[in-house]
Amino acid sequence: MQTKAYAAQSPTDLFGPYEIERRAPGARDVAIEVLYCGVCHSDLHTARSEWPGTRYPCVPGHEIVGRVTAVGADVAKFRVGDVAAVGCMVDSCRHCPSCDDGLEQYCQHGFTATYNGNVFGGGENTFGGYSASIVVDERFVLRVSHPEADLPAVAPLLCAGITTWSPLRRWGAGPGKKVGIVGIGGLGHMGVKLSHALGAHTVAFTTSPGKIDAAKALGADEVVVSKHPDEMAAHAGSFDFILNTVAVSHDLDPFVALLKRDGTMTLVGVPATPHLSPNVGGLIFGRRSIAGSLIGGIPETQEMLDFCAERGVVADVEMIAMQEIDKAYGRMVKSDVKYRFVIDVDTLRNAA
Amino acid sequence: MQTKAYAAQSPTDLFGPYEIERRAPGARDVAIEVLYCGVCHSDLHTARSEWPGTRYPCVPGHEIVGRVTAVGADVAKFRVGDVAAVGCMVDSCRHCPSCDDGLEQYCQHGFTATYNGNVFGGGENTFGGYSASIVVDERFVLRVSHPEADLPAVAPLLCAGITTWSPLRRWGAGPGKKVGIVGIGGLGHMGVKLSHALGAHTVAFTTSPGKIDAAKALGADEVVVSKHPDEMAAHAGSFDFILNTVAVSHDLDPFVALLKRDGTMTLVGVPATPHLSPNVGGLIFGRRSIAGSLIGGIPETQEMLDFCAERGVVADVEMIAMQEIDKAYGRMVKSDVKYRFVIDVDTLRNAA
Repeated sequence: MQTKAYAAQSPTDLFGPYEIERRAPGARDVAIEVLYCGVCHSDLHTARSEWPGTRYPCVPGHEIVGRVTAVGADVAKFRVGDVAAVGCMVDSCRHCPSCDDGLEQYCQHGFTATYNGNVFGGGENTFGGYSASIVVDERFVLRVSHPEADLPAVAPLLCAGITTWSPLRRWGAGPGKKVGIVGIGGLGHMGVKLSHALGAHTVAFTTSPGKIDAAKALGADEVVVSKHPDEMAAHAGSFDFILNTVAVSHDLDPFVALLKRDGTMTLVGVPATPHLSPNVGGLIFGRRSIAGSLIGGIPETQEMLDFCAERGVVADVEMIAMQEIDKAYGRMVKSDVKYRFVIDVDTLRNAA
Repeated sequence: MQTKAYAAQSPTDLFGPYEIERRAPGARDVAIEVLYCGVCHSDLHTARSEWPGTRYPCVPGHEIVGRVTAVGADVAKFRVGDVAAVGCMVDSCRHCPSCDDGLEQYCQHGFTATYNGNVFGGGENTFGGYSASIVVDERFVLRVSHPEADLPAVAPLLCAGITTWSPLRRWGAGPGKKVGIVGIGGLGHMGVKLSHALGAHTVAFTTSPGKIDAAKALGADEVVVSKHPDEMAAHAGSFDFILNTVAVSHDLDPFVALLKRDGTMTLVGVPATPHLSPNVGGLIFGRRSIAGSLIGGIPETQEMLDFCAERGVVADVEMIAMQEIDKAYGRMVKSDVKYRFVIDVDTLRNAA
């Protein structure tokens, strides 16, 4: 099936229309008409070759919400007309310990990324949600039970949502726990919303005093301006868990010092240049940990979507046309978005 | 009570005889005649002011085994003539969450160190086990049930033993687990012995091919020469837990890469200059953690001593006279000890 898409042809080209081929649905495949696709910073890093290994043409997009248009004979979970979603993964080995545990993102053979991945069993490139349709094995397709009007704002749950949900759940965010969220961008704004919805006392950390009201509106019980040492000191040794979403190099020690004994700070962003080396004393005197976490597995993504549908949790988004993607990247680089761009994929489908 | 001791009077002085005062035992105090005292690298760092805050005269020693000579009226656990031990702590606030949890080493008001500490409620300096006697509140005194002949080799359990036992237990070392011990010195040799005794598959990491046989003799199931990339690669992604006892700056990433998903590497040494900043990708792709751990609490120290008595676990030691302490420090700096010096304190008591 020929499908309209938007692709970068090189690290420096602007995006432009491009036709890609989607496979005919096999017995376990779900064919999806893409309705909305969130714009993740990873899309930009990949399209512009800021990370190694980009293959061109590059069709990004891994925050996909759409409607099922066809299902294979063995598909049990989906019917034509259902709303469905696809996140960062479209396949994995399915038989290693991590796959068996529903944590396909840690597949020991490497998961197949939704874009710029390797089609399993071959070396063919994968193409993401900057396209009119996608075909995915049902194991990697999610159900969406939010109301139709919310669907654009559901899209970012597939990456920004699950990337914060997975560590919040693993490290026990919930009632009686004090949780910090560092950085209030695409990931962080979901971290605040989800931590709050899970019942944790949620403290947002920002470098910008101008973001205090916005962070409270997202659900933060308190907001700390992290460049003010007095405000930081007032929280010393008090956090059960800190989720650090900041992907630029910074000093981790002031945050480690805010953890209780046995507390953990988990990093979900890889900085282009290393963080300052964390002070070992800060870890030893308090038995604290610094950890990392990568997106989330398919079962926990479904759990997160169901939780969000029940609680009415969605991202804060700004809708754009497919043709505005380069402009959106320009604004994203300046953090000029509250908090996620979402592409209305009808603007691609209906373009001349 | 005037007591013979050995003290450093300045960072550059050799040790020499010095008389200190021990308090008369209060109602909850245990007076102990010191028989053996292990020599920890911390003693050297403190005596030579390699760490900040040394007060002189400095009487180090926090691996103390001795015999009870008097007990206060309210002491329940000890009688005159019992063998008893004292480790790194002689007091703490006793009412914070960590003290309540029996993890006095993380006391939020700071524990009182056995030497170079602050006598609780005052600013007076504490003096350690390079002395003929010590008086300690029974809460901080340990029972020893090893045979008499083992007592010199029990002394290092009080710091080297508990510093490795506490993280091994916290991170679940035991049957079915693969545990790495990095560095085969005073701490590491106890880490290998304890991990092995706990039933874990124990892998020792050393930079010296010459230490392979010695590490196996300590109980290592396998020994990896960490500077050989092929040997390291053979263990990629396979460890549940790695205990890193190396206190000099090094690259942590090759060890992080050996952890399974959800594995932890715990550091127990503070390097004088920072480690290379750990690669965040190594943590994220595998949900791995880098943690720290500080000595151990009093209840777990007792647990460790009882376990070691039952299993016949002791340190490998070289006995020295008190008068040989400066020479022993010189050899310790060159790692020329297998694996711990222990002072025969009778050589102090009986000196002219």
